[in-house]
Amino acid sequence: MTSSHRTRRPVDLQEAVAILERTPAALDAMLRGLPDGWIQAHEGGETWSPFDVIGHLIHGEQTDWLARVRIILEHGEARPFDKFDRLAQFADSPARSLDALLEEFAALRRANLRDLAALQLGPADLARTGTHPAFGRVTLGQLLATWVAHDLDHVVQISRVIARQYSDEVGPWRAYLRVISGQQG
Amino acid sequence: MTSSHRTRRPVDLQEAVAILERTPAALDAMLRGLPDGWIQAHEGGETWSPFDVIGHLIHGEQTDWLARVRIILEHGEARPFDKFDRLAQFADSPARSLDALLEEFAALRRANLRDLAALQLGPADLARTGTHPAFGRVTLGQLLATWVAHDLDHVVQISRVIARQYSDEVGPWRAYLRVISGQQG
Repeated sequence: MTSSHRTRRPVDLQEAVAILERTPAALDAMLRGLPDGWIQAHEGGETWSPFDVIGHLIHGEQTDWLARVRIILEHGEARPFDKFDRLAQFADSPARSLDALLEEFAALRRANLRDLAALQLGPADLARTGTHPAFGRVTLGQLLATWVAHDLDHVVQISRVIARQYSDEVGPWRAYLRVISGQQG
Repeated sequence: MTSSHRTRRPVDLQEAVAILERTPAALDAMLRGLPDGWIQAHEGGETWSPFDVIGHLIHGEQTDWLARVRIILEHGEARPFDKFDRLAQFADSPARSLDALLEEFAALRRANLRDLAALQLGPADLARTGTHPAFGRVTLGQLLATWVAHDLDHVVQISRVIARQYSDEVGPWRAYLRVISGQQG
């Protein structure tokens, strides 16, 4: 096995879905029942709390990922994707409970993955193209890879927001904790 | 609620335990049953795979966190902590399955949190001091905060290792994905 075999993978529908189908349960296990101080924590200014992130993931399931897959399949490059509202969760979810948001995210993701499976995409479909409103031409494979990486980006964000609440409390160990020091590998 | 109330928290035993008790289930939900390509993925060179990280977390439960709590309580600063072997998992777990490692981590964490509760630590105990072999004087509160942040550091690492397998596959979306671009907030 070469090194590059373990540092880069080509997009594969089954491997991508394996990540996507696990994200709701992983976030549920991390967050359900946590004290409110963790759920509402953020990194200052307009940064997001774990609560805000789950609202954002819900909005993505409702309006972004699978909708864009369908636009590519139905319209190719002729119809650009709708823009995604990255702040929609602040209008949609302020009065809801975290438990309700976690359940909604899980239900929407399940339904979207069922619909994705029903499209019976084959490897050749991953090369089909659409038009991103800012980037121009993108492929269905890039969209799927981004759906996966976007999930993980927000798992990182939630973990970082919580860990950084202890930025001072860890004392000298700060030097060993990349999540707090911000040092990149 | 002031902003700083949401960007920094003092160490509180119950709040720390709330994170520590959730980590095994969160990692189990993320990783169990994933295709081997994800489990063995790494970031090049000597960097760790998700499989390696779980072995490292097991070793911490066996030899590090609670053992150091006990040294502080029993010996104060008189006896320095034992050094922690950050590469022990490469001797301990090469031939084991990921499922077995996830189960061992969960069982060890459960037992350690049970033992921690039995110590009946109060807020004043968090100021008790011990001697770290490299840092010198540290407090029990710093040790507990680091146990929590260390969990989250490795959740971040696992998410990053997997996401970066798609560093090329996400195409132009790379600019929006901090987990891949490496841009820090």
